[in-house]
Amino acid sequence: MKNILIIGCGLLGSSLVRRIHKTKLAKNIFVYEKLEKNISKIKRLKLPGIVVKKLNNAVLQSELIIFCTPMSQYKKIILKINRSLNSKHIITDVGSSKLESKEVIKENLKKNVNWTSSHPISGSEVSGPEYGKQDLFENKWCILIKDKKTNLKHLKFLNFFWKKMGSKVVTMNSEKHDKIFSITSHLPHLVAYNLVKSAQDFEKKQKYDLIKYSAGGLRDFSRIAASNEIMWRDIFFDNRKNVSKAIDIFTKNLNAFKKDINLKNNKSILKKLTQTKKVRSKIIKLKQDINKPDFGRD
Amino acid sequence: MKNILIIGCGLLGSSLVRRIHKTKLAKNIFVYEKLEKNISKIKRLKLPGIVVKKLNNAVLQSELIIFCTPMSQYKKIILKINRSLNSKHIITDVGSSKLESKEVIKENLKKNVNWTSSHPISGSEVSGPEYGKQDLFENKWCILIKDKKTNLKHLKFLNFFWKKMGSKVVTMNSEKHDKIFSITSHLPHLVAYNLVKSAQDFEKKQKYDLIKYSAGGLRDFSRIAASNEIMWRDIFFDNRKNVSKAIDIFTKNLNAFKKDINLKNNKSILKKLTQTKKVRSKIIKLKQDINKPDFGRD
Repeated sequence: MKNILIIGCGLLGSSLVRRIHKTKLAKNIFVYEKLEKNISKIKRLKLPGIVVKKLNNAVLQSELIIFCTPMSQYKKIILKINRSLNSKHIITDVGSSKLESKEVIKENLKKNVNWTSSHPISGSEVSGPEYGKQDLFENKWCILIKDKKTNLKHLKFLNFFWKKMGSKVVTMNSEKHDKIFSITSHLPHLVAYNLVKSAQDFEKKQKYDLIKYSAGGLRDFSRIAASNEIMWRDIFFDNRKNVSKAIDIFTKNLNAFKKDINLKNNKSILKKLTQTKKVRSKIIKLKQDINKPDFGRD
Repeated sequence: MKNILIIGCGLLGSSLVRRIHKTKLAKNIFVYEKLEKNISKIKRLKLPGIVVKKLNNAVLQSELIIFCTPMSQYKKIILKINRSLNSKHIITDVGSSKLESKEVIKENLKKNVNWTSSHPISGSEVSGPEYGKQDLFENKWCILIKDKKTNLKHLKFLNFFWKKMGSKVVTMNSEKHDKIFSITSHLPHLVAYNLVKSAQDFEKKQKYDLIKYSAGGLRDFSRIAASNEIMWRDIFFDNRKNVSKAIDIFTKNLNAFKKDINLKNNKSILKKLTQTKKVRSKIIKLKQDINKPDFGRD
């Protein structure tokens, strides 16, 4: 492949730059980045990408274009580059939810141009090019979206591409993707944000200095609740229908939990606390987490 | 000090045995353990404690007695050893909530015998003597409970004792303790259990195999939701009044969050997602967690 264009060079974008360079998958890696502070970092880090100012020039010269910006930026960028796009361009993104962004793309992308969506499960609470690494995608899942109108040639290429990035690739449609991740990722983030907010509210009201006692559980949630706010606003808005349903399941269970506690319903509580343990074993067996107490952090 | 008796030799009890031995704080460390499998482990691990069968004999010979069993065991053990207890015994426990266990102790402990409660913040998702370590309490908080009837001499001794164990000691009353930990520990655990249960319910209903995609957030919660079920049942039951209130704050905030998402209330969401980030910085500044992305686990 001659040239690849990365739009948005944060944690994921910069990891792609590093990995593409390492695998020699492209002659040139063009990088388009809006934030001045990130451009400075890219230069200071000597990332192997060519920072471009003229986005359309880079589009015209590239065969693969990867959107690594927050999803709320897609429309603006699409409208900006439409005039330089053609049906041969392979376009993808790394957004964490798909249903609404699919509509945005459909409404704005030039006719006969293909967009084949990806979602590498490789996020973290940190953002910015300084945190990227060439092995960020190593052994992580990357979901490729296959809907009715998906270009199969492009899908096949992206399958090859993400494997080169180190990912394990799996294909599903937008609908299924957004349902699954509303439960395994979006709800956990929302719950973490909400728990930390509740602790803040309590601290303010009681005037207790309680954050220092967070090692008993709260600190785990605070990590997730420190994730990028723009990215997560976009995800919550984009996937709001599924996230709402997930909140409803969660709330229903929470009310039942509260009732069991207040009634000291021994049998029901023990059943809950025992069954959830199985999920941890499954996650470790599936190598989705480290098998050390406390994530081995102490 | 001549002899110390540890009742219950799991994660915390066995860590105490190791540390007391290391600091040479007692001539003998007696260990009373109910579970045969734990006794075998203690022997296999060659822990420096003397496993005793006759609990009352050990009580009569010990100056310090530390309850490291689930809280639901306190009553039974108290009734068993009452006849051997006297006012000189320093008795403490490591239970995670205090209000109800205080009542159980008050109702059952022999008159003129003192109980001075402790809570070292050093738990983890694993249990059993094989996971204990001599530095488990190192630089962790240990809360000492000072209520109206607390024996100040015993309190002073326990302050010295926990510092020898490596802890940073702070004193507060049961009321404040249970309020603080309902937010920083008990609610986070309950929410984690509830989130994992909701994912299980969803998986069953949708027939999706979703646990394998848990790296996007769920896996963090699954660690906490793998904690010991007996211990956590006891905590939820013991501190149910504060936990109920904590659930109410959480639910109120969750409903507001849901509304904001459905209405795409940009300003309100961004405020929430930005403010919660500050808690993470505070936790790291207070050295209550590791300052590495993803807990440094990848």
